[in-house]
Amino acid sequence: MDTGMISLASDNYAGAHPEIVAAAGAAAAGTAGAYGADPWTALAEARFRKIFGEESSVFFVMTGTAANVLAIDAVTRPFESVLISDCAHMHMDECGAPERFTGSKFIVVPSEKGKLTVDGLRPWVEREADYHRSRPKVVSLTQTTEYGTVYTVSEIKAITDYAHENGLLVHMDGSRISNAAEALGLDFAAFTKEAGVDFLSFGGTKNGMMFGEAVVFFSHEVDDAFQYTRKQGMQLVSKMRFVGAQFEAFLKDGLWKRNAAHANAMAQKMAEALTRVPGVTLTQPVEANAVFAILPVAMIEKLHKKFHFYVWDNQTGEVRLMASFATTAEEIQTFAEEIQGMTV
Amino acid sequence: MDTGMISLASDNYAGAHPEIVAAAGAAAAGTAGAYGADPWTALAEARFRKIFGEESSVFFVMTGTAANVLAIDAVTRPFESVLISDCAHMHMDECGAPERFTGSKFIVVPSEKGKLTVDGLRPWVEREADYHRSRPKVVSLTQTTEYGTVYTVSEIKAITDYAHENGLLVHMDGSRISNAAEALGLDFAAFTKEAGVDFLSFGGTKNGMMFGEAVVFFSHEVDDAFQYTRKQGMQLVSKMRFVGAQFEAFLKDGLWKRNAAHANAMAQKMAEALTRVPGVTLTQPVEANAVFAILPVAMIEKLHKKFHFYVWDNQTGEVRLMASFATTAEEIQTFAEEIQGMTV
Amino acid sequence: MDTGMISLASDNYAGAHPEIVAAAGAAAAGTAGAYGADPWTALAEARFRKIFGEESSVFFVMTGTAANVLAIDAVTRPFESVLISDCAHMHMDECGAPERFTGSKFIVVPSEKGKLTVDGLRPWVEREADYHRSRPKVVSLTQTTEYGTVYTVSEIKAITDYAHENGLLVHMDGSRISNAAEALGLDFAAFTKEAGVDFLSFGGTKNGMMFGEAVVFFSHEVDDAFQYTRKQGMQLVSKMRFVGAQFEAFLKDGLWKRNAAHANAMAQKMAEALTRVPGVTLTQPVEANAVFAILPVAMIEKLHKKFHFYVWDNQTGEVRLMASFATTAEEIQTFAEEIQGMTV
Amino acid sequence: MDTGMISLASDNYAGAHPEIVAAAGAAAAGTAGAYGADPWTALAEARFRKIFGEESSVFFVMTGTAANVLAIDAVTRPFESVLISDCAHMHMDECGAPERFTGSKFIVVPSEKGKLTVDGLRPWVEREADYHRSRPKVVSLTQTTEYGTVYTVSEIKAITDYAHENGLLVHMDGSRISNAAEALGLDFAAFTKEAGVDFLSFGGTKNGMMFGEAVVFFSHEVDDAFQYTRKQGMQLVSKMRFVGAQFEAFLKDGLWKRNAAHANAMAQKMAEALTRVPGVTLTQPVEANAVFAILPVAMIEKLHKKFHFYVWDNQTGEVRLMASFATTAEEIQTFAEEIQGMTV
Repeated sequence: MDTGMISLASDNYAGAHPEIVAAAGAAAAGTAGAYGADPWTALAEARFRKIFGEESSVFFVMTGTAANVLAIDAVTRPFESVLISDCAHMHMDECGAPERFTGSKFIVVPSEKGKLTVDGLRPWVEREADYHRSRPKVVSLTQTTEYGTVYTVSEIKAITDYAHENGLLVHMDGSRISNAAEALGLDFAAFTKEAGVDFLSFGGTKNGMMFGEAVVFFSHEVDDAFQYTRKQGMQLVSKMRFVGAQFEAFLKDGLWKRNAAHANAMAQKMAEALTRVPGVTLTQPVEANAVFAILPVAMIEKLHKKFHFYVWDNQTGEVRLMASFATTAEEIQTFAEEIQGMTV
Repeated sequence: MDTGMISLASDNYAGAHPEIVAAAGAAAAGTAGAYGADPWTALAEARFRKIFGEESSVFFVMTGTAANVLAIDAVTRPFESVLISDCAHMHMDECGAPERFTGSKFIVVPSEKGKLTVDGLRPWVEREADYHRSRPKVVSLTQTTEYGTVYTVSEIKAITDYAHENGLLVHMDGSRISNAAEALGLDFAAFTKEAGVDFLSFGGTKNGMMFGEAVVFFSHEVDDAFQYTRKQGMQLVSKMRFVGAQFEAFLKDGLWKRNAAHANAMAQKMAEALTRVPGVTLTQPVEANAVFAILPVAMIEKLHKKFHFYVWDNQTGEVRLMASFATTAEEIQTFAEEIQGMTV
Repeated sequence: MDTGMISLASDNYAGAHPEIVAAAGAAAAGTAGAYGADPWTALAEARFRKIFGEESSVFFVMTGTAANVLAIDAVTRPFESVLISDCAHMHMDECGAPERFTGSKFIVVPSEKGKLTVDGLRPWVEREADYHRSRPKVVSLTQTTEYGTVYTVSEIKAITDYAHENGLLVHMDGSRISNAAEALGLDFAAFTKEAGVDFLSFGGTKNGMMFGEAVVFFSHEVDDAFQYTRKQGMQLVSKMRFVGAQFEAFLKDGLWKRNAAHANAMAQKMAEALTRVPGVTLTQPVEANAVFAILPVAMIEKLHKKFHFYVWDNQTGEVRLMASFATTAEEIQTFAEEIQGMTV
Repeated sequence: MDTGMISLASDNYAGAHPEIVAAAGAAAAGTAGAYGADPWTALAEARFRKIFGEESSVFFVMTGTAANVLAIDAVTRPFESVLISDCAHMHMDECGAPERFTGSKFIVVPSEKGKLTVDGLRPWVEREADYHRSRPKVVSLTQTTEYGTVYTVSEIKAITDYAHENGLLVHMDGSRISNAAEALGLDFAAFTKEAGVDFLSFGGTKNGMMFGEAVVFFSHEVDDAFQYTRKQGMQLVSKMRFVGAQFEAFLKDGLWKRNAAHANAMAQKMAEALTRVPGVTLTQPVEANAVFAILPVAMIEKLHKKFHFYVWDNQTGEVRLMASFATTAEEIQTFAEEIQGMTV
């Protein structure tokens, strides 16, 4: 179904990696326990426990929104609040799902290059407890951020230390966690559990799976309850094997890493091409698979004839260009050539 | 991953049909709009509109629970109630998801052979309106029922006529709608839209898909709003193409019918085998792909060494045996031979 | 505003006792901390702690619905269920408030003379835990019941023992708890805390207050959290002093008891009068301030010209007649004379 | 219960006006329909309809939080958002009640002197509809604002015009609406209904009532549904007569106006006294009954020995001083003398 257009719109405009497809297909034969009581799910869960420690718990869900919402619901009561950045996906792009399901207040704090800062959190964390106001319980950060930047381990630790000193838990929205791991050159645990993060939404879809996200808690405390929460949250799929099989393929021999490395490299190439064009400004450091840049309006219009991508801010002309595991070097080459000759 | 056991536990213990797997695989290449703006989803949606009329709206979600809950949420306010049978999946097996998401009261009325009756509805429908009590808005029936029985068109019409006369809408939980269509020898519209049903949860998973259910409204009224509800309900998957491709394969040349016909036939064979065994009583008419029977405890114990199936009622010894598209004639033959020789 | 009609409709058709009115009026002068930080509230809370033990916690709210809903919300998560009787006020007359605010499932079990039984609870309590089904957490009983009957201490203990053996908590909806205490001849603690009840909705309004109900927990566990729940539940009134002052007047020298004793006595007189009338059947034991009886339709029609009361069941002709602290002996005498002469 | 302290903390630290107390007391005798079916409620409702037009609907609730939450719930679906200011009571002081009950997203926009501006609303109102994001439905403004300022009619009209052009409704949180009316020298309708406001929380408690707020819709559209919402929202008190009687006293011959005029005048006197003190800066125009000022820390400490008032902002030393109907000229005189002699 080729339209002749090249998509740099989002990593979820890509399809699925052939190894993922093959793994799901291979899981199709035979009967197996429903709702996760199958061998594929067991294998994938074990794979996660190997990454994050045997004491961690992992649960598969179908969407990134569900991973975030159900994870947070598991550790909050409705009168407790969640501190998120002003560009957080949970704030901007989840249609109020967090508020509706959890009943909690999601409080927006300023971000810098897509990142929370301790100073941004202070006014909400340090004021006196008062039952007229929701009680802060969770800080949630997004890795990679919505602006394609990547928290360093020390940036994460600054937040988790501060949160823990003040009795808060830290959640990471890792819908693009593979891109972050690759960018940091670290394994997953090093910048999550080992950096003080308490629980995690681990993304699969945006990095080459058909569907599937994981919620990981780094201790067993919420374990039993989450089974109920997931069911009540409408996320307990009966043929869980098809998620388990995909995650097993994703994790077992580095497919996640190959996909992320490729996507990140493609974004770098886009950034390099853009920096050579007069009148174009990169607005964010390009650290993973997204490029943010301000382009002249005329250039945007021309590019839109051949490339799908989003104008992020109509006022400034800032656009987002995103690479995925499936973005080809040829596509990026075409993009580079296109913009190189542009005079606006 | 063969355990040597034969599963008659549920139709969702089966995997996925090869044609489904192939269709999903074929959709994996290339970029396409996310969140349903892709050609596979468009094709599948058109297929549904062809079945149920061009004025109908169809939305894909990932679980049967979500289909039921979001469908009902779309047409109710939290102070409005939903009348369901005492054996309804929404009452017994959805962990309070309906109540939590919709905020509505789900009122349980008695069933006969798994079916609602007008007389069962009367006490709740006909009492005086009173704002101390939730206002009835929806009647929901399950087809095939949780007891494997099938509402006839006239049984459905009796309920939809009564509901409409009293200002109520009618929802059908059709997680096994293919089995019902095959059992009735009718097309889908004949016992849904044309019988007065207003909106429908249309199941794919239990009849050979990996994942995927559809919510179908037989008019455009809820259309736009449901897009938001689905997102807020955590059911808007980004790579919707993989649901669309499966439904297209399911519907385009009768795969749904072949699968359902096979499952229903296998259930008939089980029933026939059971009727030949002294001490065994079929407790429900076998009309689709489920068999309910009371077996002596000793027989249950013996059978459980070779076959997975559920004891439905510990008090009475009633069991449920269920066939799927993937149940083989050999498996049923083995079952028949096993019980034939049993003396208890 | 005399209409010439005598109201036997409900104890909340009465106004407020003069001592209550005087106490509220006396609290009107001067400034005091808002939201419960005032001396009247402190006095009333201390009064409750004296009754139920120093380790108990008490919180005032404005409606009986709120007392029930917020009390239960404090000890449940949304995937946990509450077992209630089929005639429970929470089931029949709270418009889905329990479901909406708590997100929990309220499961209806059969009652006898308005009372729960252990056998009625068993099927829901004793089945295997399964995350497809809400996990039972609370049993709620109403004292006096919705049928005007009164649980004995041993009946309550049978339920609380069973509940605790199975890991459940027990709530009492005591919107008419004064009538029960008077009927049993016991102090409040004897048939609540000392009989194993874990938390309580203690009613003031129906026994002579203008407004005001209390939620009492018999340990400090939920204490801090409930302050937030009450605020989030829209029940934290700023001028709490006016509730505190009423409760202080209600409790300090037996006003609650005088009011309840009077109401109960008036109901007995009604019952006596009715038993002397041929064709009338009392349908429930008259143990507190309500009388349930089946009257001939013609008698109902005649009586409705002079008396307000509810037909409870249109099918059977069962009516409810209710006395309050304000029902006068003259009113009951008029009623007795009226029915005595009736031939139908 | 005199502590010797003078309270300038909040208008809800005051008690109730004697005329209010007398009216409630006079309603205590006799039986009357419960839940609002009584003559006092009917009178008060008629009074509101006279003020706001016969086509308007009025419903009484018990707290300001409830008035705001239930009003907004009546006109929104959970996927629709509400735009509020960054200092709105619903954002800062209602413990997440709005989010929890409505399920909606409350979006915070910048304010100037406590007021919303059209420019602040634009980014949320004018961006393209997208079902990943809650759909804006209501703008809510507070009159008087949380900073004691008062929207002029033309400021209100600017917002209501803009809202209506963009398909939004406008709500006014009028917990101090009497103070605003008095400040503007207008009747209630002139700056609400006639200025384009669609529905209103009308406050009674802060201006001399014991309890009681009203929700007023300026057309009949939500009428019937709101009866259910109020019950489900736990705000339907049985002895509504006591709210009705208070509102009748409040409205019938200008008590609201006398109370508000007094409170506003007392605030003016405080402001005048403060402007005469070196080192003190008024931070907001004093337009109603609140004074915001920055005081030297040492002065705050000294004053706190004799006066209750809140430090609004610990960083800047900004305090809030508030007068009520019950604040006496002597108290303000004492305050004026106290600060006059202060050297810091």
